[in-house]
Amino acid sequence: MTSPYSLPCLKRVAICGGTHGNEMSGIFLVRHWIRNPSELQRDTFCATPFLGNPHAIEKSVRYIDRDLNRTFSAEFLNSKDSESYEVRRAWEVNQIFGPKSSSQAYDFMFDFHNTTSNMGTCLIVDSEESLLSMHMCNYIQKHYTRSSCPIYLYQLAEEETNSINSVAKAGLAFELGPQPHGVLRADHLAQMRSLTACALDFIDLFNKGMLFPAFEIDAHKAVQYVDFPRYPNGEISAVVHPKLQDKDFLPLKPGDPIFQTADGEDILYEGHDITYPAFINEAAYYEKKVAFVKTEKHTFSLPALQKKF
Amino acid sequence: MTSPYSLPCLKRVAICGGTHGNEMSGIFLVRHWIRNPSELQRDTFCATPFLGNPHAIEKSVRYIDRDLNRTFSAEFLNSKDSESYEVRRAWEVNQIFGPKSSSQAYDFMFDFHNTTSNMGTCLIVDSEESLLSMHMCNYIQKHYTRSSCPIYLYQLAEEETNSINSVAKAGLAFELGPQPHGVLRADHLAQMRSLTACALDFIDLFNKGMLFPAFEIDAHKAVQYVDFPRYPNGEISAVVHPKLQDKDFLPLKPGDPIFQTADGEDILYEGHDITYPAFINEAAYYEKKVAFVKTEKHTFSLPALQKKF
Repeated sequence: MTSPYSLPCLKRVAICGGTHGNEMSGIFLVRHWIRNPSELQRDTFCATPFLGNPHAIEKSVRYIDRDLNRTFSAEFLNSKDSESYEVRRAWEVNQIFGPKSSSQAYDFMFDFHNTTSNMGTCLIVDSEESLLSMHMCNYIQKHYTRSSCPIYLYQLAEEETNSINSVAKAGLAFELGPQPHGVLRADHLAQMRSLTACALDFIDLFNKGMLFPAFEIDAHKAVQYVDFPRYPNGEISAVVHPKLQDKDFLPLKPGDPIFQTADGEDILYEGHDITYPAFINEAAYYEKKVAFVKTEKHTFSLPALQKKF
Repeated sequence: MTSPYSLPCLKRVAICGGTHGNEMSGIFLVRHWIRNPSELQRDTFCATPFLGNPHAIEKSVRYIDRDLNRTFSAEFLNSKDSESYEVRRAWEVNQIFGPKSSSQAYDFMFDFHNTTSNMGTCLIVDSEESLLSMHMCNYIQKHYTRSSCPIYLYQLAEEETNSINSVAKAGLAFELGPQPHGVLRADHLAQMRSLTACALDFIDLFNKGMLFPAFEIDAHKAVQYVDFPRYPNGEISAVVHPKLQDKDFLPLKPGDPIFQTADGEDILYEGHDITYPAFINEAAYYEKKVAFVKTEKHTFSLPALQKKF
């Protein structure tokens, strides 16, 4: 029997709400925890709540100048000067919770999101190689029993991480939906709160030395972004097909309808293999030219994990 | 038997999409009809589609400087100068389709909206005194059979009309939801299209001289706006209660829960009478300090109507 993989204990844990200023569950929770942090206390640590994009939150918009959650790459973090509010905010976050990829960085960062897509209670990790985060997902899937928690691995091949939680040594994002941006629904709020409690319990058990055995787990790995059909002037010429709408993480087969034009014509999926679409009809992705994200479903084997003694 | 009320025939009919730049069903339909207006042709007239707030549509936001659909009051229409984009746009719309309250104004204007609230396929009229619009609602309720179409009378007592369709001699708004702002759902798109076809049929029959008999009809009349509970700094301190969420137009009784605080405490409805809440948890109304609108349900008797010969 091989000995478990070992990692240092997690003392400095941050929780970010409002990386996108109109995703309300995290904003409300973080503001509540700043007033009353008792829920974030465990025997071995206390998590630090903070608001990601205060100016965007104030205006209830996703961002002011650019998407903060695509701004934590070397290009922006190492730039000398910027007029972009989010680039300057990224420097601040990196200074407080990083620097990214340094030994001074926070041990873990949660990041709270909402989506207009029917993603349910989705757990987002950069890749399956993030051992600690994958163990956390496995723990959540076993202990958070109110709904299934699909795992979405966002990092495309060769892509540099640029999300806010990439500043810390490890991270996890919650992506809860469907919830319109700018709206706070009690149901998603309660789910996000319970997921957080469960994840903090995991960290506490890890810090106390619990051995987490090896396991196999299914996850959806992003492979390609699919845009809407568009007219030459850029306006969209077809909508997400009613048979695809709300079907996040369900199999989409070659020949299935994906869009419907204004004239009632169906546009079919022409891929060669089954895919599992995610982020179907997310409001914020229209401008990114993403109608949905194609994912592949894989089963990954992860080794056992225990705190480094 | 009294003779029917008579009104001139409706030759100039306008259809507005995108009065709010992130309410997507109307924007998509109007853009389609500008390309191909054949669906808007009837024997006796052809409706004119136009985009309400082009700059806000481009940015996919509700408005640039102020809510265009609250800008058609005498105060703004008669102002001499303004730096507000929407005030200047209101002047343009008033010039093209009005002037408001003049004999030159368009005969009828439709205005297309979406809401994050569960309003279904809602028909919005200023008040029950708008005879032509109420007849149109009655016709739609009888002929559009895919869903019930509740009627919402928006004008509070003593309030001046300030909506975009108040520029025309008569008007009707479609308010379809739930749909997140910035998202186009195929289901609501199809509903809005069918409602429009049905309403244009009504105008055509009216223009051809059909007699529309007297009738009784239920409608919800707005009486009061209810804000979220808030902290002294203005942040909301409680969310719409899960038992109220999505219950638009259903009876709310004294003692029923309406909000839930971060500490899990229920806040109860303290009114003395049953009310029928509308626009529950509409994203755009957080800044207007409206968590929902209290309405009264009334049955109105409307007289017969026929074209003036």
